[in-house]
Formats: sequence, structure tokens, C-alpha cells
Amino acid sequence: MALCPILSDNGRNAIHKVEAYNQFGDKHQINIAGEEPLTIKVDGKALVTLMTLGTHPELLVLGYLRNQGIFESIDDIKSVTVDWDREVAEVETIMRQGIKSSLSNKQPNKKINGHALDRILEKLRAEPLHPVELKKSYIYDLVREVKNYNYTYSNAGSVHGCGLCERTNVIKFIEDVGRHSATDALSGYMWLNNISGHSKIFYTTGRLTSEIVIKSAVMGIPVLISRNGTTHMGFQLAQQLGVTLVSRAKGRHFVTLNDYNVAFDRND
Amino acid sequence: MALCPILSDNGRNAIHKVEAYNQFGDKHQINIAGEEPLTIKVDGKALVTLMTLGTHPELLVLGYLRNQGIFESIDDIKSVTVDWDREVAEVETIMRQGIKSSLSNKQPNKKINGHALDRILEKLRAEPLHPVELKKSYIYDLVREVKNYNYTYSNAGSVHGCGLCERTNVIKFIEDVGRHSATDALSGYMWLNNISGHSKIFYTTGRLTSEIVIKSAVMGIPVLISRNGTTHMGFQLAQQLGVTLVSRAKGRHFVTLNDYNVAFDRND
Repeated sequence: MALCPILSDNGRNAIHKVEAYNQFGDKHQINIAGEEPLTIKVDGKALVTLMTLGTHPELLVLGYLRNQGIFESIDDIKSVTVDWDREVAEVETIMRQGIKSSLSNKQPNKKINGHALDRILEKLRAEPLHPVELKKSYIYDLVREVKNYNYTYSNAGSVHGCGLCERTNVIKFIEDVGRHSATDALSGYMWLNNISGHSKIFYTTGRLTSEIVIKSAVMGIPVLISRNGTTHMGFQLAQQLGVTLVSRAKGRHFVTLNDYNVAFDRND
Repeated sequence: MALCPILSDNGRNAIHKVEAYNQFGDKHQINIAGEEPLTIKVDGKALVTLMTLGTHPELLVLGYLRNQGIFESIDDIKSVTVDWDREVAEVETIMRQGIKSSLSNKQPNKKINGHALDRILEKLRAEPLHPVELKKSYIYDLVREVKNYNYTYSNAGSVHGCGLCERTNVIKFIEDVGRHSATDALSGYMWLNNISGHSKIFYTTGRLTSEIVIKSAVMGIPVLISRNGTTHMGFQLAQQLGVTLVSRAKGRHFVTLNDYNVAFDRND
């Protein structure tokens, strides 16, 4: 059995108190969400700088490396050490050879390009997303349930929240400044705990854009639920990759744009 | 007098109609916002791929090149030609030498790093943001006024809108998938039309994060208004750069976090 990477445990406090003034000029204290730069270095070489809430930096780094296809296996990673004084996450690889040269020339921030999408489609042809059971009641229950987890949003606003769910159960919920980072952190959590995307549902407060649909497919999750809407490319990619989109999920309403890989019971 | 760059006029339709199903399984048609990849090539060399709504691609390209500090002057740019079949925006420079070698090694997607921030601060020390007059009534009027411009949002949702404003007048309003792209497109509009940020107010539906505060400073605009909240780094950078933040501006409410460079009349 493979050894888990050694991770620091340097999550930051998500909420800051600052003085502000309302429209009448009255001074009062408000909560605002954190945002910090974190530069990922792989074997000493800077890869990218992410802006993050900072509550789960080690998971964010792992998930970023996974979702961007920088490393195929978590076994390649020896340790992740976050140092906020330097605003750096040091990633040490097992082989200490940095990123393979074939990957190091790619722009990791390039969210869509022919090559990356081709690789994902090729992988999905070999391992298609697993079918999952979905009920109307699951969606209603999850939409209600996630409200118990959005701590930063409910206290300070200005963050997105993403939940890894199974049936009506929220397995892990993570908030971050960007929905892509919250998603990456969940991906890191799944990688670290060897949790597959089979039978899972991904909930996000953010929009269902191309980026989030691709990440869902990379994480092997067949269903995306959002309280927000979708873009045209999110919709097109979902069709191509076989991800089922449930948008505008609020209260007892939702919209589905397609049904792939799900046995969807709208009567229960 | 300098010549303006030659621009194609290839804005896309922002809204797509797709078939969807509601929670009861009833089929209906819904509007969703466009999202397309656009790769910027400078003198033939790919620089970055942006995801965009596509309504103002030429302005987006100009503003991206300006805001990222890739070119100091619009006079360096001969033409911008957008070709959606190839998903490419070809930028031709006057000198046809591509990006200067000192800049080409920088990661343009890196939103914050010591160097770029240092350069911006250095520039602001030489040319600080101009003071502007701000009244409570301006904020109330603008918040009401921008609702007449958010065409895509009100018809399809899932986009951000940004407005370049002066007093209570919306000079130009642009929507895009990401608030950063809507901001860049406005910056391109200002560059093209030689509009300075002096006496301007920048309205955004998006959050006041580090990225938007930096862009506002680069565009020379001293006041940022958002119907949304701010992050801690957005707040810190606003203090450092001298940008006044007005957050949570909805109806007849708003929150100010600091007053720089403004003569703020809260009684009018």
C-alpha cells in the first residue's frame, strides 16, 4: 500500500473583522472573508500562484495538481508544506525531479485547450462516468442540507461553497474565494482519502461553467448541482463528457439540462 | 496623433436557447449565457486562452494586454482580428516583434506577484489616483441605473456586469462570464477611446477581490462600487493603492470600508 504524502496543517482563519461605515456614516464592525496568495512550488520551482481563502491549503494544492493533470498519482507526492509567512506551498515529489518535462511547458492556468480536453475525453472513453441514482428528493434534501455547512458565507459572504455528496449526505464541504479552488480542494480530499467519484453528487454555489464541468469529469463525478445557472459551454461540455447538470436548485425548484449516467426518479 | 489599432467587429450573440426540464419533468426552453474560449496570439505566438461571453472580444483583448502590463501603450498595437472558427484573436504589433522578451517570460495569469504589484505601486507613486467627488445620491442613482444595462443577466443569468461611470452616468457597461474579463473589456474601451480613470467610478456586480482592486488602480479609477462584498486582500490592497471601496450597494444601502481620494458627501 502506498504511503500518504506528509501534509502540514496550516489552515487559516477564514474570517477577518474590519471597521466599516454604513450609508449614514455610522461606524460598525463587519466580517469579511480572507483572501491570500499561495505560490505552489514543486521541488523548489514555482508553478502558479493561487488566491485562496486559505482554510484548506494542503488539500487545495493536492487537488490543483490532480485536476490540472500535473501528476497522475498521489503516490508521486512526498509532502506538501504550507508556509504563510512566505506565501508558499512547497511540494516535494518522491523522485525529486520536479514536474516531468512533458508537462512543465504547459500553462497550468489554461483551463481549456484541445490537448487537455482530448486527454480527458480519452480517459473517459476508457473509464466512463459511473451511473448514479438520482431522486428529486435527493436534490431538495441536499439544497437544504448544504446550508448547515456554509459557515464563512453566512458570516462574511463573498465565498463560494462546494460539497462532495452521496445521496442526501454531505461528505465534505469546502468554501473558497473561487469556486474552482473550492472544487480543487475537494478533489485533493478525494485523492488523499482514496474516494472515487462513483455514486457521488457535486454541489456548488457557483455557476456551471466549462471549468467546473471539466473538473467534475476529472474527479469522476457524474452529477453537478448548482443553485446558480449554466453557461453554453458548460452545457456543451456536459453533453460531451456525460455529466448531468442540475441548475437553479433552490428550495423546491430546479432545472435539468440533460440526463446522462443517471437513473433519475422525478416522482420521489 | 497616433493611429488607432484596426479592430475586427466580431462580437457574438450573448444568449443561447436550449431545451430544459423543470422539477416536474416539463420541457421548456431556457436562455443560457454564452461562454467560448479565445486564444490571444501576439504576432503569431499564443499568449493565453480566455473564456468569454464573446460580445466584445476586441475590447477584451486590448484590455487584457493593458491590464496585465503586456504593452505600455495602445500605439504598440497595429490590429486585433478575432476569428471564432479558430477561436483565436490575432494581435499584430507595430514592430512585429511579439512581446518584449522581458515580458514574455511572465505568467500573464498570475494575478498577484511581488513584481507586478511593485510596478503598479511605483506607477501610482508617480501618478496617484485623482481625487473624485462622491455623494450618497450618486451611489443610489448608479445602483438603480445599471439595471437598465444588464441585458444578458436579466435574460439568461450567469454573467457579471461592470460599468464605467461618472457621477450618475453609465458611460459604458459590459457583461462577461468572469468579472475580470468584463473589467478588462472596459479597460480596452478606455484605452481605445483615450478615456482616463480620473473622476470615474467603477461599478461591478462581482466581489471586490484583490484582482478587481488592482485592475481599478491600473485603470486609474479611484472608486469601486459593488453590490457584493469584499475580501480581506481586496480591502488591504485598496488601502495600499488608494482605491475607495463601496460594497453591498443595493437599493438604499451600502458599506464603505475606507475613504481615499474622495470628497464623500454622505448627506447629499
